[in-house]
Amino acid sequence: MSDCIFCRIVRKEIESSIIYEDENVLALLDIKPFKTGHALVIPKEHFENIYDIPEDVIAQIYRIVKRIAVAVKKSIKPEGISIIQSNEVAGSQGIFHFHTHVIPRYFGDKINQVGVIWESNTMLTKKELEPVAEKIRGSL
Amino acid sequence: MSDCIFCRIVRKEIESSIIYEDENVLALLDIKPFKTGHALVIPKEHFENIYDIPEDVIAQIYRIVKRIAVAVKKSIKPEGISIIQSNEVAGSQGIFHFHTHVIPRYFGDKINQVGVIWESNTMLTKKELEPVAEKIRGSL
Repeated sequence: MSDCIFCRIVRKEIESSIIYEDENVLALLDIKPFKTGHALVIPKEHFENIYDIPEDVIAQIYRIVKRIAVAVKKSIKPEGISIIQSNEVAGSQGIFHFHTHVIPRYFGDKINQVGVIWESNTMLTKKELEPVAEKIRGSL
Repeated sequence: MSDCIFCRIVRKEIESSIIYEDENVLALLDIKPFKTGHALVIPKEHFENIYDIPEDVIAQIYRIVKRIAVAVKKSIKPEGISIIQSNEVAGSQGIFHFHTHVIPRYFGDKINQVGVIWESNTMLTKKELEPVAEKIRGSL
């Protein structure tokens, strides 16, 4: 897409700190890093989100996400890494070209609070979960 | 691993709400859901995290993550979806068998705050980012 910032980065119309590139995938550093070494992995072709990206492309993306995560761990030495991919505005997506964040994590950083929110949730039984499972299975 | 909760779920020693299963991959509902429809996608084989999971396996996992995300969107109708995978305690990992969260999102939910934290970060130039890019490239 002509005005998509990631498409422009792929076409090298906008400079970026590229850390990996092949025929289909580009990995670069986020210019608004949560922490040093925060990287993004994107398909060169424009897909808006996880709903429209083809399975073959998402498979390629995550092969590279794994490689980048290992490289970030080795080179930046964070205490952990979060892999986050956001879809739609309500899902925290800001740029509408599929992208996966590789985020260096440290004890006490702010993203950690999310984990705490989850912990406070009630534990459900299979009986309580089954109606939901049924719904999703019906859409596969 | 004999005492790993996800390995026990794979062996059907513990009941779970399975939404997808093939030779290598299992998808089930999280028993402590952030929101209704919160699903997990795991490899049947035990890998601790993104550092040790093979590329072929992570590729298979995310093919299914994509399918589950589309199914959750259709069936549960969230306003967005977050795909999150955590590594090491500092990275919010709680169970040490690789797993990817498929999380239904809604405007105003609590995970959204993370996005706000990122927005407040400074925008960096390529010159500022390059030393970091160099480090990661050197570890690829």
